[in-house]
Amino acid sequence: MPGSPIRKLAALAEGRKKSGIHVYHLNIGQPDLPTAPKVLDVIHSYAEKTIAYAPSNGLPRPLTAWKRYLDHCGIHFDEHELIITTGGSEAIIFAICAVCDTDSEVIVFEPTYANYIGFAGIAHVKVRAIPTSIENGFHLPPEAEIERFITDRTRAILFCNPANPTGTIYSKEELQRLVNLAQKHGLFLLSDDAYREFAYDAHVVSIEDFPEVRDRTILLDSCSKRFNVCGVRIGLLASHNQDVIATVLKFGQARLSVATIEQLAMVPLLEDPETYTKPLVEEFRKRRDAVCEGLKSIPGVTYYKPEGAFYITIGLPVKDSEHFSKWLIEEYEDHQETILLAPAQGFYATRGKGMNEVRLAFMLKIDDLKRSLVILKNALEVYRDKFMK
Amino acid sequence: MPGSPIRKLAALAEGRKKSGIHVYHLNIGQPDLPTAPKVLDVIHSYAEKTIAYAPSNGLPRPLTAWKRYLDHCGIHFDEHELIITTGGSEAIIFAICAVCDTDSEVIVFEPTYANYIGFAGIAHVKVRAIPTSIENGFHLPPEAEIERFITDRTRAILFCNPANPTGTIYSKEELQRLVNLAQKHGLFLLSDDAYREFAYDAHVVSIEDFPEVRDRTILLDSCSKRFNVCGVRIGLLASHNQDVIATVLKFGQARLSVATIEQLAMVPLLEDPETYTKPLVEEFRKRRDAVCEGLKSIPGVTYYKPEGAFYITIGLPVKDSEHFSKWLIEEYEDHQETILLAPAQGFYATRGKGMNEVRLAFMLKIDDLKRSLVILKNALEVYRDKFMK
Repeated sequence: MPGSPIRKLAALAEGRKKSGIHVYHLNIGQPDLPTAPKVLDVIHSYAEKTIAYAPSNGLPRPLTAWKRYLDHCGIHFDEHELIITTGGSEAIIFAICAVCDTDSEVIVFEPTYANYIGFAGIAHVKVRAIPTSIENGFHLPPEAEIERFITDRTRAILFCNPANPTGTIYSKEELQRLVNLAQKHGLFLLSDDAYREFAYDAHVVSIEDFPEVRDRTILLDSCSKRFNVCGVRIGLLASHNQDVIATVLKFGQARLSVATIEQLAMVPLLEDPETYTKPLVEEFRKRRDAVCEGLKSIPGVTYYKPEGAFYITIGLPVKDSEHFSKWLIEEYEDHQETILLAPAQGFYATRGKGMNEVRLAFMLKIDDLKRSLVILKNALEVYRDKFMK
Repeated sequence: MPGSPIRKLAALAEGRKKSGIHVYHLNIGQPDLPTAPKVLDVIHSYAEKTIAYAPSNGLPRPLTAWKRYLDHCGIHFDEHELIITTGGSEAIIFAICAVCDTDSEVIVFEPTYANYIGFAGIAHVKVRAIPTSIENGFHLPPEAEIERFITDRTRAILFCNPANPTGTIYSKEELQRLVNLAQKHGLFLLSDDAYREFAYDAHVVSIEDFPEVRDRTILLDSCSKRFNVCGVRIGLLASHNQDVIATVLKFGQARLSVATIEQLAMVPLLEDPETYTKPLVEEFRKRRDAVCEGLKSIPGVTYYKPEGAFYITIGLPVKDSEHFSKWLIEEYEDHQETILLAPAQGFYATRGKGMNEVRLAFMLKIDDLKRSLVILKNALEVYRDKFMK
């Protein structure tokens, strides 16, 4: 069971701050913007006398709101095909447990959301990671290349679209490769749509747009990012496959219910997502552009322009980005400032991969992002002279 | 993966209510009393602008409050030995995953909390259920009898004290049996203390009172019952074993965090548990007494006096309590009223056990409990004439 690479260096950063150094956090996907007042209004005005269990699949009003939100996105489910979960995390764990036995394998694309590997560990399921590369913006390999990784133990392909940690948006043609393989080999497609609205240069095609795999798809969702409510822990699992829903509901019954007030607090934004999310996405588009612009001026950095989400995974002219990141946070300073990066090794299931890569999250105001990239540029020069001569 | 027996008949009950029949719910552990206003005050006055992720182990103030609460109970942990969880449910899943591999076995005592079987299913771990019987109030078997169930795959003994679904409180001498076996066979003791304060006729001895297994115990806890906040989903895992805590923290990092506002909402009651919990427990003591008094007058019922919690598992003069319970909720009425029971089969891992048993939860006011038992008595007579002649 691996530890979280994102949170790994955070403790060091806290120590450094105490010594008077300002740390720019480029490491974590916690938006810096305020949560919608509508959400807080629901919480502040909760009027029931007892905070009682919710039904295991979710409270009726939030379920209706989720259905309407998905309809609004052009994704159509009946309410009995939806199960509200404790964050997207629980949705992913439940999906893996529902379609896998202990000796099963799940395919992911690396770099991958690190916690997919952790969730597979909880379910005692093996992850098979298919490499993608920075040179083509971490897009999917050809169908035949993906097929090479499918064994008689493979049960599912788990992917995030737009992707974390790369910001890549898979095209309809790319998704068609997964759909073809799912049909051919009887696999489930687990689609993590947490970043659905964060699309800048490409339209996000939903896995629900492929009716031929209607019974083989499980949609995994989360309010955390699009509604900027990481601390409420509300997600969703949706599937047209009634066996999947019945199994997931049993897991849901075992853990009884999801926090009552948090479910209710999501209703206003699920019923009117765009008013809050559209300006949020526009802000992240500007930040994405500023980061790509800033990266241009740093010698030796390899990067691409991410089409969505709010991350970019870049290559650095260093041998070990974890050593570099640790040095940045423990020793380096530029006018009493430094940056906190997420070394990309943790986003790879394959040992030794991504050694020179880091993930940047666009969680700072544009001026701070620009300043962070200047610090990165200066630090790389000092580091090269110090460690790489 | 079994479905929840408690929630199984609930859908039928909803249908029956629509036809004008009043249903007394004796089936579920959702207290009917109001949540403490202090809890709602915290929620109503949450003042942060962004509902952000909490640290994976828990927010600092709630962690300190949990430590103080446990100190108050005579149970001493350092804060770094505590991990706040999404309900007691998550604490139990994490504990099982931390000490087991896929081929491991966990011992429980049946009738057992049904969801232990569900959690073991999620973790792909096998449950070995040791029978206890209504005749001796579901107390533990002798040490040698328990030892017969230990194999080289056994990793842990998971128990609830006071117990759900029986209300049994294990004596110090009974716990000593488990402690001896844990030492002899290198097992972990997973102690679910959700009902700690619900003790009427016996002192609850904590597994933490046995220093000889200090590194082999994992304490599992929940705010749901004692603070009557089932819908907040806040629990705790505590262990002096740093390997266990390190592993559980990795699981915690994978699911990122526990709901921020709910963690904070527990602080006032963790800091002052008795003001709220003492009167609550006294109310349940009266209910327990009323139920035992009412059961006296029902012919053919076997029961004992539960020492704690707010459940009793009783034997009925029927062959199949699930059939009886279903008949009660679908067909029977007594002056347009009926009762909803939890058939006990679901609390047994061993197929065919507990066929004539049901669990009653004391979630109604005393007059309603008394009336429910009159309905039970009358219904048993009708049922006997209808099905058992």
